[in-house]
Amino acid sequence: MRTVAVSLGERSYSVKVGRGLLAQLGVELRSASMTGAIALVHDAALAATYEPQVRASLDGAGYKVTSVPVPSGEGSKSLEQLSRLYQAFAGNALDRGTTVVALGGGVTGDLAGFAAASYLRGVPFVQVPTTLLAQVDASVGGKTGIDLPEGKNLVGAFHQPSLVLADLDTLATLPPEEYRAGLAEVIKTGVIADAAFFDYLESNSARLLEHQSDVAEQIVVRCCEIKADVVGSDERESGRRAILNYGHTIGHAVEAVAGYGTYLHGEAVAIGMVAAGWLSSRLTGFPEGDAARNRKLLAEVGLPLRLREPLEPLALMEAMKRDKKARGGELRFVLARRIGEVEVVSVQERDVLAALEVIHPSHAAL
Amino acid sequence: MRTVAVSLGERSYSVKVGRGLLAQLGVELRSASMTGAIALVHDAALAATYEPQVRASLDGAGYKVTSVPVPSGEGSKSLEQLSRLYQAFAGNALDRGTTVVALGGGVTGDLAGFAAASYLRGVPFVQVPTTLLAQVDASVGGKTGIDLPEGKNLVGAFHQPSLVLADLDTLATLPPEEYRAGLAEVIKTGVIADAAFFDYLESNSARLLEHQSDVAEQIVVRCCEIKADVVGSDERESGRRAILNYGHTIGHAVEAVAGYGTYLHGEAVAIGMVAAGWLSSRLTGFPEGDAARNRKLLAEVGLPLRLREPLEPLALMEAMKRDKKARGGELRFVLARRIGEVEVVSVQERDVLAALEVIHPSHAAL
Repeated sequence: MRTVAVSLGERSYSVKVGRGLLAQLGVELRSASMTGAIALVHDAALAATYEPQVRASLDGAGYKVTSVPVPSGEGSKSLEQLSRLYQAFAGNALDRGTTVVALGGGVTGDLAGFAAASYLRGVPFVQVPTTLLAQVDASVGGKTGIDLPEGKNLVGAFHQPSLVLADLDTLATLPPEEYRAGLAEVIKTGVIADAAFFDYLESNSARLLEHQSDVAEQIVVRCCEIKADVVGSDERESGRRAILNYGHTIGHAVEAVAGYGTYLHGEAVAIGMVAAGWLSSRLTGFPEGDAARNRKLLAEVGLPLRLREPLEPLALMEAMKRDKKARGGELRFVLARRIGEVEVVSVQERDVLAALEVIHPSHAAL
Repeated sequence: MRTVAVSLGERSYSVKVGRGLLAQLGVELRSASMTGAIALVHDAALAATYEPQVRASLDGAGYKVTSVPVPSGEGSKSLEQLSRLYQAFAGNALDRGTTVVALGGGVTGDLAGFAAASYLRGVPFVQVPTTLLAQVDASVGGKTGIDLPEGKNLVGAFHQPSLVLADLDTLATLPPEEYRAGLAEVIKTGVIADAAFFDYLESNSARLLEHQSDVAEQIVVRCCEIKADVVGSDERESGRRAILNYGHTIGHAVEAVAGYGTYLHGEAVAIGMVAAGWLSSRLTGFPEGDAARNRKLLAEVGLPLRLREPLEPLALMEAMKRDKKARGGELRFVLARRIGEVEVVSVQERDVLAALEVIHPSHAAL
């Protein structure tokens, strides 16, 4: 097991990465001085696989457990499911000493995290991510939230977990396309902050899809280290933390306009990185060689470089302006200077429209 | 106009108390460097009286205003009304630069405050309280929240306002029974923290109900000063802030068991203070003379000292154990040592039951 420290003063915590960790959860919570009851919020798809293991571990450590399943899928990041969690917590008279444990992917973690942030004005929270995306990104950093009909993550809170336990064994049951989508955030991490890590990914590109390898462990640990560093320097995204959104401005717009579920988040981010790389070459001196390396690595793991079906450019522009990072309609992008270094810049609409042409299905390979 | 400073590091803010302040709101927001749009969440009962004034002030200062009425009454502290606010905010594409202004009493402030805490993971928030209760208590300190069917304030956040503007002129239209109920928190403030202020209230007891007097201004300013001091030393109620709950443990149980709306919050707190005073005499050396002074002052402003109809003692006990301040079923009370000084102590059930006899309708006057 390897441990990554997230340094946030009195809100500091550890991310523990390794194998066989689900069975250790009860012991880990005791070590972390969690004394009250546990609300085990879990993806319903895990009810027959990992939930019983986790529950046994918690039982074994003497915890009183209230287990609450949440339907799989982005649709669960809703006020309706949030209300269901509140009812389960209050109906079981869970008090301020309760710890909410989220077992599942990003959807479960975001929903359970916001419930933990707001129930009784905040109770402790532990992330047990079971997808690559959640292990390398969503479970670290304290962003929690739900969607509104008007857009994703429009309601939420910054609420740091007390512990993140990433069990690599859970990746074995992850569908291959979801594993692949998680790699988009991994590749992004190299581009924004660590050229040596990007080199490592290139050198091991043939093994990036092997969840049982030491490469998987290295990927999760390094992504958590970098995210911990970024979040530690800017918890509430007043500045540097925005770099994590490389590829996401267009990626989010693609998800929204295509209809959520049409593209996996990581697929949309991969396409968004292709557009951001092109914009970077044009606006921030990103060498075309670096942009090409990024595209090559995405392609090698099977991620898309272009849209599968055309999307209306003006609809994408509108979605970007509605993005909650927008202010007064100005478009702000994270763009790369070179692999390992990015900056946040304002971008003209005409340049964004040109970048959208690059990801059109009919565009020639760059 | 008098200004009270709430010192909370980067979350510090001013409470401004005076007359004619509604017309100054726009100017005050400009002085506070609020640059974005305004969501004006207001008690629907104020739509014909104060909302147009406030709106004119905001318009005059050049703000784009989205006005959102909320039905009067505790029933609005619900997930349904919260959802309505989110829809209004997102439907009008309000971005992170938006300031939510709450115009009304505690219900409006608590609901709008939680919406502000959670919309886009938190936008700025300004309180414009129009009831005595909200001016002396609810609008200062950053507690926001909504109710669940299982209990009051079970969901919420700590989210400090950027400014509190308490216009004493708005007290002119407050129903007398609500003004009176607000005085319960005023008297409580003297008991928990300031013997000299309690003396002042006694000396001016005949004028406490006069909203147009200098006494009203002094009351609001002094209560805000004391609350600012308490909150400044313990923002998230890990310790000292709990003293603000004097009279509230039993008071909340009375409200819940009698059915919300049967007693005004201040009436229930007055009854709770009678019970807490009796417990204090028995357990923490509160002189009977001090307890009698507290009861006399409550009676002089017309607040109840006993229940109007009997309530089942065991139901009240159960409600206290469900209180969100309870942990593992232990009953914790704020009790007085003398007027101006309180402490938090564990209390045995049999003592609580004995205190409940004292507030029974048939109990002889103490």
